[in-house]
Amino acid sequence: MVDIVALGEPLIQFNSFTPGPLRFVNYFEKHIAGSELNFCIAVIRNHLTCGIIARVGNDEFGRNIIEYSRAQGIDTTHIKIDDSFTGIYFIQRGYPIPMKSELIYYRKGSAGSKLSPEDVDESYIKSSKLVHSTGITLAISDSAKDAVIKAFELARSRSFDTNIRPKLWSAEKAKETILGILRKYDIEVLITDPDDTKILLGITDPDEAYRKYKELGVNVLLYKLGARGAVAYHDGTKAFKEAYKVPVEDPTGAGDAMAGTFVSLYLQGKSIEYSLEHGIVASTLVITVRGDNEMTPTPEDADRFLNEFKT
Amino acid sequence: MVDIVALGEPLIQFNSFTPGPLRFVNYFEKHIAGSELNFCIAVIRNHLTCGIIARVGNDEFGRNIIEYSRAQGIDTTHIKIDDSFTGIYFIQRGYPIPMKSELIYYRKGSAGSKLSPEDVDESYIKSSKLVHSTGITLAISDSAKDAVIKAFELARSRSFDTNIRPKLWSAEKAKETILGILRKYDIEVLITDPDDTKILLGITDPDEAYRKYKELGVNVLLYKLGARGAVAYHDGTKAFKEAYKVPVEDPTGAGDAMAGTFVSLYLQGKSIEYSLEHGIVASTLVITVRGDNEMTPTPEDADRFLNEFKT
Amino acid sequence: MVDIVALGEPLIQFNSFTPGPLRFVNYFEKHIAGSELNFCIAVIRNHLTCGIIARVGNDEFGRNIIEYSRAQGIDTTHIKIDDSFTGIYFIQRGYPIPMKSELIYYRKGSAGSKLSPEDVDESYIKSSKLVHSTGITLAISDSAKDAVIKAFELARSRSFDTNIRPKLWSAEKAKETILGILRKYDIEVLITDPDDTKILLGITDPDEAYRKYKELGVNVLLYKLGARGAVAYHDGTKAFKEAYKVPVEDPTGAGDAMAGTFVSLYLQGKSIEYSLEHGIVASTLVITVRGDNEMTPTPEDADRFLNEFKT
Amino acid sequence: MVDIVALGEPLIQFNSFTPGPLRFVNYFEKHIAGSELNFCIAVIRNHLTCGIIARVGNDEFGRNIIEYSRAQGIDTTHIKIDDSFTGIYFIQRGYPIPMKSELIYYRKGSAGSKLSPEDVDESYIKSSKLVHSTGITLAISDSAKDAVIKAFELARSRSFDTNIRPKLWSAEKAKETILGILRKYDIEVLITDPDDTKILLGITDPDEAYRKYKELGVNVLLYKLGARGAVAYHDGTKAFKEAYKVPVEDPTGAGDAMAGTFVSLYLQGKSIEYSLEHGIVASTLVITVRGDNEMTPTPEDADRFLNEFKT
Amino acid sequence: MVDIVALGEPLIQFNSFTPGPLRFVNYFEKHIAGSELNFCIAVIRNHLTCGIIARVGNDEFGRNIIEYSRAQGIDTTHIKIDDSFTGIYFIQRGYPIPMKSELIYYRKGSAGSKLSPEDVDESYIKSSKLVHSTGITLAISDSAKDAVIKAFELARSRSFDTNIRPKLWSAEKAKETILGILRKYDIEVLITDPDDTKILLGITDPDEAYRKYKELGVNVLLYKLGARGAVAYHDGTKAFKEAYKVPVEDPTGAGDAMAGTFVSLYLQGKSIEYSLEHGIVASTLVITVRGDNEMTPTPEDADRFLNEFKT
Amino acid sequence: MVDIVALGEPLIQFNSFTPGPLRFVNYFEKHIAGSELNFCIAVIRNHLTCGIIARVGNDEFGRNIIEYSRAQGIDTTHIKIDDSFTGIYFIQRGYPIPMKSELIYYRKGSAGSKLSPEDVDESYIKSSKLVHSTGITLAISDSAKDAVIKAFELARSRSFDTNIRPKLWSAEKAKETILGILRKYDIEVLITDPDDTKILLGITDPDEAYRKYKELGVNVLLYKLGARGAVAYHDGTKAFKEAYKVPVEDPTGAGDAMAGTFVSLYLQGKSIEYSLEHGIVASTLVITVRGDNEMTPTPEDADRFLNEFKT
Repeated sequence: MVDIVALGEPLIQFNSFTPGPLRFVNYFEKHIAGSELNFCIAVIRNHLTCGIIARVGNDEFGRNIIEYSRAQGIDTTHIKIDDSFTGIYFIQRGYPIPMKSELIYYRKGSAGSKLSPEDVDESYIKSSKLVHSTGITLAISDSAKDAVIKAFELARSRSFDTNIRPKLWSAEKAKETILGILRKYDIEVLITDPDDTKILLGITDPDEAYRKYKELGVNVLLYKLGARGAVAYHDGTKAFKEAYKVPVEDPTGAGDAMAGTFVSLYLQGKSIEYSLEHGIVASTLVITVRGDNEMTPTPEDADRFLNEFKT
Repeated sequence: MVDIVALGEPLIQFNSFTPGPLRFVNYFEKHIAGSELNFCIAVIRNHLTCGIIARVGNDEFGRNIIEYSRAQGIDTTHIKIDDSFTGIYFIQRGYPIPMKSELIYYRKGSAGSKLSPEDVDESYIKSSKLVHSTGITLAISDSAKDAVIKAFELARSRSFDTNIRPKLWSAEKAKETILGILRKYDIEVLITDPDDTKILLGITDPDEAYRKYKELGVNVLLYKLGARGAVAYHDGTKAFKEAYKVPVEDPTGAGDAMAGTFVSLYLQGKSIEYSLEHGIVASTLVITVRGDNEMTPTPEDADRFLNEFKT
Repeated sequence: MVDIVALGEPLIQFNSFTPGPLRFVNYFEKHIAGSELNFCIAVIRNHLTCGIIARVGNDEFGRNIIEYSRAQGIDTTHIKIDDSFTGIYFIQRGYPIPMKSELIYYRKGSAGSKLSPEDVDESYIKSSKLVHSTGITLAISDSAKDAVIKAFELARSRSFDTNIRPKLWSAEKAKETILGILRKYDIEVLITDPDDTKILLGITDPDEAYRKYKELGVNVLLYKLGARGAVAYHDGTKAFKEAYKVPVEDPTGAGDAMAGTFVSLYLQGKSIEYSLEHGIVASTLVITVRGDNEMTPTPEDADRFLNEFKT
Repeated sequence: MVDIVALGEPLIQFNSFTPGPLRFVNYFEKHIAGSELNFCIAVIRNHLTCGIIARVGNDEFGRNIIEYSRAQGIDTTHIKIDDSFTGIYFIQRGYPIPMKSELIYYRKGSAGSKLSPEDVDESYIKSSKLVHSTGITLAISDSAKDAVIKAFELARSRSFDTNIRPKLWSAEKAKETILGILRKYDIEVLITDPDDTKILLGITDPDEAYRKYKELGVNVLLYKLGARGAVAYHDGTKAFKEAYKVPVEDPTGAGDAMAGTFVSLYLQGKSIEYSLEHGIVASTLVITVRGDNEMTPTPEDADRFLNEFKT
Repeated sequence: MVDIVALGEPLIQFNSFTPGPLRFVNYFEKHIAGSELNFCIAVIRNHLTCGIIARVGNDEFGRNIIEYSRAQGIDTTHIKIDDSFTGIYFIQRGYPIPMKSELIYYRKGSAGSKLSPEDVDESYIKSSKLVHSTGITLAISDSAKDAVIKAFELARSRSFDTNIRPKLWSAEKAKETILGILRKYDIEVLITDPDDTKILLGITDPDEAYRKYKELGVNVLLYKLGARGAVAYHDGTKAFKEAYKVPVEDPTGAGDAMAGTFVSLYLQGKSIEYSLEHGIVASTLVITVRGDNEMTPTPEDADRFLNEFKT
Repeated sequence: MVDIVALGEPLIQFNSFTPGPLRFVNYFEKHIAGSELNFCIAVIRNHLTCGIIARVGNDEFGRNIIEYSRAQGIDTTHIKIDDSFTGIYFIQRGYPIPMKSELIYYRKGSAGSKLSPEDVDESYIKSSKLVHSTGITLAISDSAKDAVIKAFELARSRSFDTNIRPKLWSAEKAKETILGILRKYDIEVLITDPDDTKILLGITDPDEAYRKYKELGVNVLLYKLGARGAVAYHDGTKAFKEAYKVPVEDPTGAGDAMAGTFVSLYLQGKSIEYSLEHGIVASTLVITVRGDNEMTPTPEDADRFLNEFKT
């Protein structure tokens, strides 16, 4: 029994030790990642409990994911060992765009993509307060999509990060599937950004986006604006927070940290201003390092950050 | 126009920076490898020319393979860029068996496995002296197997390394396919070992194996005995060389270095004793480092090794 | 409720990245260790459950120990957070004796040494099959020693590793304390070696040592002989296993891996020959790397090792 | 016979190879540091001679400190070898505040804290021009404090850096002790900052602080303002220098480099403007790397810096 | 037959793994560099063909240069193996000026400096569209200078980078030699900066410099302004591009990447605005890493950069 | 005033981080070395005082040598700063001969080779007990050779290591020069091996060599036999010590450590057996690491080694 249940594919990340085109990189640093896993860690750092429904391969990388998740406090009892391999990806940093990263996946046919409705334990979902997933999980396979649908069907409340990855599916397919989900289920917190909203709604303006998403049943909107910061909407109120200027090592995972922090604080009754402010701190810290979730702060540590930057 | 043409899948190797189960390894060192690519480099170090017929992905890892091959002097004009991804693998070293390695592939559906008969340029084959391939290429896909068959059909002379990898196909499939090849084509040099011969012929004894392989049309047999050394047969003569005792970092690629060295020296008219002796030196050097082909020596450097160890 | 409960001090290990006197070492690699924690991991790899009663500091290193232990499957519910700091140590490798290590502790007054009888939960002990501790825990503080005594008093069965560390106490103190324990409690499995036995009993001969320890109520004796191997005694039977020749990176932790493997297999009804053979495999693997417990094998992996070395 | 004598505890620093919470850091880089040792190196780089009165352990880390100090030109004849251990500390970088560091000490009961009046050689002090120490040395032990008092008593002239470390003593204790020193001895150069002055005088404004410190017998005040720069006062004149914008790796040691540079240039008759400008250059360079003193420039190198940034 | 032929000395670069004075640097990272080699790689990335006329030593570093050049697509058929050694250099980064580098050469008497007119193949030059060299090649030896003169004599068109390195020759010698070249040969594209122009013409103002260089027969001028950007002149038109703000790792090689990109795009008929814009992107990417040429982008990748920074 | 004065060229060593041909090595590890500097450190570890007469460049590498030497306790007052550059070399390890190294020098024309008789301070030599040099110093320049001759002329006693490096001079030149030295000066301790003796005397047999060297005025002969050990002769007595079997990282510097240990112990009145035994321990430790002198033990540490290996 956990507060939040996430569905998604945990992955092994091989981050370039030095920036530049991958063919010039000689050493790779291993991290454990995956959008939903990053989200879970943010939830736990913010003092809620969290479990992930997922599959990993019966191999060292699968064991690595389970051990790391357990170490970080994630409930791993619903991670299934699958005969396929564990999905992985490489990160190319700083080329051709300084301070940006590119992901190269080896996940097609992976254990994670075998996630299916049978993995979704009804009582586990029903005893939780909120179910979270992302566009990635919808994209990796039909069975994974069906698992999300089953979980959303059973869920008391839902958060969803659109996270449209062009390498995983076409814009058309993404639009159709995600809009289907949004139309079918009330989403307590929707996390998205202008790029994805352009695909989904054909617009990018935050206020306009909020109006449209609200019509689709979204209660709270967290709208990420990249290096500019983020804006959150709820019940007619709107909060904006600028991003902090820090040295960027790798932006991967920043959005997940912000989402997990925002959702779990909001779920604990914090205002969207407070939740957003802490979400921005989380994403700010994450981009200063390689690795997606190690830097995600507790509220206490985020407050130390805020004290420093307020001075 | 090159002396030797090889067909196979070049791969990116991610070698563990430290030994042990992969989940405890934090850094990985990139190398360029693949059985036939390793073979080609051995050919070139031994002063023949060599080209590889292969496919790589249209990605950084594919470019890496082409650039590295070109650097090492391999003719890369018959490497085709394919829309699929470039195959990769990880090496776990020293666990659970000290000084041994395990390979974890991410190559299913890779560009390399898309190798097909259409990639085999008739005039390229016909102008070469010998065509080389391995059981790995037979195993990765039907089209790759057909490419080998087409090349062997056109070849003036052939060398073949059985290289049966249980992770790629069943023993039954391997036996049927490889025996089919051996029955259909005269093999100038067959490279194999007791494990593979057990699968193919049900026996392991070197002399007996030579008799049987000879009946199948094999002219020269290079029979690798692992840490004990290797034995070579030709025309009733037999040569045995013990392996040298050196510190083992990673045995991967040692057999390819030995095979490429042996075949290219033999093709230049050297005796099987001489060819075997240099092959053993090559494999000895390769096991002392991570990376499959960097250490493969020229005959001049191998002689320096032999002078030292003879003293 | 776990099969085995251990009492001891988990520590952060800073292992020299390169061998030599510490003043010439520029980089240090962090590992999680401690004799009893290493023992626990061996227990879990051998398919029993295990928990550790311990204290760690309220700091990053303390959190590190808890997270790592949890990752490895250790029950961490009885690790208490203490206001003191987490104990650490450095390893100097290869100087002045190649292939040997020296430990430099920063543990005096550490959280781990604050372990006390109040940390010992009666029902936790009573529901377990065996309680394990070592001479180190007896040495670090009086309260820690009292904790061991309380646990041994309540235990259904006990294993004990003499592990006399001259840097922690005098030979006289060690002798008096450990003999006191041996006289007071029946020890199901005693793990020791000639150096410690010289201090305790004034002798070093294995057979003679067994006779004397048996008189003190020891049922099974595991007598470690370092690079020569180990011998085990039980009920008049005696088993000896030679050590395997492998490249030595750092011998630290090898004895713990052997002890934990031996005890947990014996507890599952395996013969002392089988238990010893697997214990030797565990210690052999551990010495090939930096880090005390990452290499400890499952029985299945140990069997793969044994198959290889039997050939 | 040296120009300046410092009293303090040299320490071994283990700096995180990657930023983030220490439990996620796998490699640590060793440096030699300690506030007064950093000060001494700045003195020597600025062409005065300097010695340190200190104790280190009879261990590799103690030898490391002596060898490094000797290499850098510090007179080490008054470093005493003590039976205790050498103090060390770890640096956590960038968490929870980007570009800031946290220090985790293992120095309680260290050799350095055993510094006592008996270590203070009267003739050594009397033959020097100035004696330097810091609030850290006052805090580590009563005997160390007494050593500073004895040296200040004998000194021809004194510089003092308040350096209040909350991990070493309470604000009350710090205030009482430091004010005691300031009341008792005329300080030629006082180095401090708003945080410490808040504790000592209850104020933070630089001008006001100067007035109060002057009343306490301070001749020159160097008031560090962190990322904003620093201000110096002397004889009614005031100099302000902004900090330079550079990439921050680790701010640790920046203040010591500024202090040592300022004091030694001032002692050579340079104006406070000149001394401050060079002090700012020193601290600017130090924050761009891990390690506290390697980057401290000579005046010639500082001029090259100034030429570049003036353009 | 290649589009562009460059003459110069390829070198092995040993870049400091950490910034600071070289005596504190423990690890060095090897790269392949040299102004003209960097230029060639920029040419190739911009889709023209390029060859280098050069000498390297008959040693591993010489082989390294040839293999790397071949990998990057440079025609290496005119690199001669010389009995001398291969030139090398070290890079000290960030001291005494943050974000700046210093080069320490070991190239006196190197194979590269033995470059001579006999190495210049008439037909190779005549079949090319443009010949490129730099002030460095003029400085390293008289025979190298004569080789440039012979090639310029035969060339259809010329580009020249003044690149005056005070460590290689005096300002007087540089002025006399370079002005001699400029007076004798029409230069299609001259690449220079205020420092060099100060030496050559006694002025630094870009517009004035263009007028004077034009009088000397320069058709297009690329005038590099360091951190401020660059300006290009042609036929009365003038283009200016600001530099992008990115984290600086090592500025070495940035000018070569800009020059090679500019010249090769201009040669393909692009406007000086377009060529300059892409040149600035190339230099921007190069300064974010260690290594002079790995980051030089293709026009396609440069466009991705421009799209990002335009948003 | 020191016990022993050495003359020679200290060098910066760049040791391959990974074994193999240098072109495949990406990282290099810096060490401070040079035959005579290694010798000096061995002298100091064995509790005599030692100074070196040498020149280094006015550059970071020169400063590095002075600082390191000073750290290790060498009297650096006779190291002169020269306008030339500091000599360096690279080490290629394990190729083409496992466990052997090759040195690639960049030292021609170096500051070290500018060593000349004017650097030899008469009183410094006369106040010492012994002067040491090697064939390397004789080979690097005529002025360096003359410096050795001047020092030997003034010396009370001499030790000499033949150390013939084929890369520095021809066998003929080496023979003529070294025999000239041996004929002219009585050598208290001559250090040599079969390869050098073959060049000098045309023989290799130890006993025969001793007879011939004795006729030339050699009092004690230390005859190094590489992996087999070493033999020492004095006054009709002969001592032989086998080498210890340890993992070899880099044999460079082993002979210097043995020589310095042997000479300094012999000079303190130890028997040649004792001196040889400790010399063998020193060389054994040195070959287990990269770096030539860090592992050279004190007699106390050597005894710990001997205790371990005697067991």
